[in-house]
Amino acid sequence: MTREECQHCDMQDPFRQHRERFVVPSGMIYLDGNSLGLMPRSVPKRIEQAMHQEWAQDLITSWNVHGWFQLPKIIGDKIARLIGASPDTVIVADTISVNLFKVLTAALALRRERKVILSDLGNFPSDLYVAQGLNRFLADGHMLRTVEPEQVFESISDDVAVVMATEVDYRTGRRHDMKAITARAHALGALVIWDLAHSAGAIPVALEAAECDFAIGCTYKYLNGGPGSQAFVFVNRKHHSSAEPALVGWWGHAKPFAFDPQWAPAEGLVRQQCGTQGMLSMQALDAAMDIWADVEMGALHDKAKALCSLFIELVEAACGKHGLRLAGPRDMARRGTHVSFHCPEGYAVMQAMIARKVIGDFRAPDLIRFGFAPLYNSYTDVFDAAAHLAEVLEKRLWDRPEHLAKKSVT
Amino acid sequence: MTREECQHCDMQDPFRQHRERFVVPSGMIYLDGNSLGLMPRSVPKRIEQAMHQEWAQDLITSWNVHGWFQLPKIIGDKIARLIGASPDTVIVADTISVNLFKVLTAALALRRERKVILSDLGNFPSDLYVAQGLNRFLADGHMLRTVEPEQVFESISDDVAVVMATEVDYRTGRRHDMKAITARAHALGALVIWDLAHSAGAIPVALEAAECDFAIGCTYKYLNGGPGSQAFVFVNRKHHSSAEPALVGWWGHAKPFAFDPQWAPAEGLVRQQCGTQGMLSMQALDAAMDIWADVEMGALHDKAKALCSLFIELVEAACGKHGLRLAGPRDMARRGTHVSFHCPEGYAVMQAMIARKVIGDFRAPDLIRFGFAPLYNSYTDVFDAAAHLAEVLEKRLWDRPEHLAKKSVT
Repeated sequence: MTREECQHCDMQDPFRQHRERFVVPSGMIYLDGNSLGLMPRSVPKRIEQAMHQEWAQDLITSWNVHGWFQLPKIIGDKIARLIGASPDTVIVADTISVNLFKVLTAALALRRERKVILSDLGNFPSDLYVAQGLNRFLADGHMLRTVEPEQVFESISDDVAVVMATEVDYRTGRRHDMKAITARAHALGALVIWDLAHSAGAIPVALEAAECDFAIGCTYKYLNGGPGSQAFVFVNRKHHSSAEPALVGWWGHAKPFAFDPQWAPAEGLVRQQCGTQGMLSMQALDAAMDIWADVEMGALHDKAKALCSLFIELVEAACGKHGLRLAGPRDMARRGTHVSFHCPEGYAVMQAMIARKVIGDFRAPDLIRFGFAPLYNSYTDVFDAAAHLAEVLEKRLWDRPEHLAKKSVT
Repeated sequence: MTREECQHCDMQDPFRQHRERFVVPSGMIYLDGNSLGLMPRSVPKRIEQAMHQEWAQDLITSWNVHGWFQLPKIIGDKIARLIGASPDTVIVADTISVNLFKVLTAALALRRERKVILSDLGNFPSDLYVAQGLNRFLADGHMLRTVEPEQVFESISDDVAVVMATEVDYRTGRRHDMKAITARAHALGALVIWDLAHSAGAIPVALEAAECDFAIGCTYKYLNGGPGSQAFVFVNRKHHSSAEPALVGWWGHAKPFAFDPQWAPAEGLVRQQCGTQGMLSMQALDAAMDIWADVEMGALHDKAKALCSLFIELVEAACGKHGLRLAGPRDMARRGTHVSFHCPEGYAVMQAMIARKVIGDFRAPDLIRFGFAPLYNSYTDVFDAAAHLAEVLEKRLWDRPEHLAKKSVT
């Protein structure tokens, strides 16, 4: 494809107008929306209202008058539609790690006779830490069994209480077969927790069709909720009345304002809430989620696949001789929407790219990672990024000192 | 005291200029800063910078370039000074309930041979829920023993692993003797967790002088961090290397960006962090904390005590005949800086007060609660609030339909 053909594709892009809803920094090719999504243009106005009117003037009455209490559920329903979940099964609260802890303990309590948590080495490390920290505290034989990502399916055995996996690998983009793993786990009596950090807003997810038990996910990547915006948690309706996390708090109480000294879980999903949530971050997220109202995930995924395929094709054609090698599967059905290449001197190469305002990430030991957020990334972004990468490698620009220092959050 | 004398006190008030740093809604007497503090005038500018420059333009580089990663510690140090803690012993993260869960599990792991958590019925219910939820999950004999607030000291026995109490009662304002209870707990081999939700920024706290083990607290009340801003956690330096929470995540890892699949706690306090924090809420909190740079807590407490004493005196003089009765101790050394009265028809009375823009809270079964935030409440506020209360009672305004509906968060 030529650059002109890419421009033509951009003009035909059904999500062309969505890009307009974001602030795209001038001259920047931003391929790190899988780390921190761009700021939606609707956010500042919402936050100004939240500060100047709701907080400053209406103060505590805003919890009701401006619906602060309802936001976790309202936003949850907006996310639910994108991940194949029905209303009242997703709620927004806390962080991914905290939510994982809630559903992991809830799942373990539903499988008290089993002590094995099965996960894989492609899982985001923090998810593994959550299980390890819990096991260390319990000190009663609970253990985390980690296998290679490709071995998860075959490693499910009848001593496994919970299978815990991230659908899309934060490094390679490899995508698990959610339906097959969930079915196999259920057949062997285990429950399943899916981490959708690199899925939600990027690829179509069918949580309920796959009969998933629990899921957690991130809102500051493809959902563009802003730095550190609250995470979400999904609980399959069949577990609503039985899933009881070890970590609870007043927002999950049946009657929070009765101030009863005795814990009594609220009906359904609400008990997955715990403490009072930061409303500035949550308001930004709510404004960001409005962008998704008219987005059909199948069509969005089609665009994402096209962007990823094009990038792989362009990079392999122009950069193959420099030792680059695609990470993860080539089949678009088996990957998410970021693309990583094993790259000698990858860290320095990414620094050189960033110095040219092409923003991606480096992930040890040797991966350069490019995230394609189909809501706002264009075909021209893809073309230009590949051209920059070719030039950086061709001219050995990574071997020069004018590199920017940079670290990032996945 | 007459209103003129109150005005005179306001002119002499050493914190007169601090009030100017807040947005005080026109015509409102705000006595609910113990629920949600007023908005500091410095917040909107900071948040605009955080949105338009840091998020929208600098994106992921802001984690380092704009010091996002360092904020939990930077703010923690600002709070530490107000609660008698040294630098590097306080960090900001998550919610009170989540932080309580962390330090409660860390404390229990340090006292594995004991299974009793001791608390009192004056504790904020969510703190009790945290212990109950954990015990229910453990199902191994761990139990929560709750006594009357006045019985905590004498109820500490050598089977108690952890004493967990809120220093200032959210209803009555009664204040625990932190030093005595902590010493008694230590003498009997127990650890102590103090909840400072209604203490931090209101009364001087001497965590290290009292040799407290752990503390948690709220930033959206007297510290004015904004709705649901992150909570803080204190860990005594002597426990830094031994306290390991059951709930951990990558922000608490020794090397978070090594993405090691194996959990390894960071040195010291850092391991009390877990997941990625909402930066809009945290930036607001950081801006709010700058107001405290020149505040000496002893002088601030002197003002708070004067406001509370004056309110009690004025209300008892003018409203005593209507059946009002002071809740909690009269001795200012034994209470925090909110004042509650048992009041027949208290709910309706508070509604009538709110209709007149005198904002306090109702707490079941019969308490009307008025919080005095000494940074911005004035002697005239106190005088006028007492006058309104007298008029509402005298004219039975609470018995009329023009009341506003309202609920709030403690």
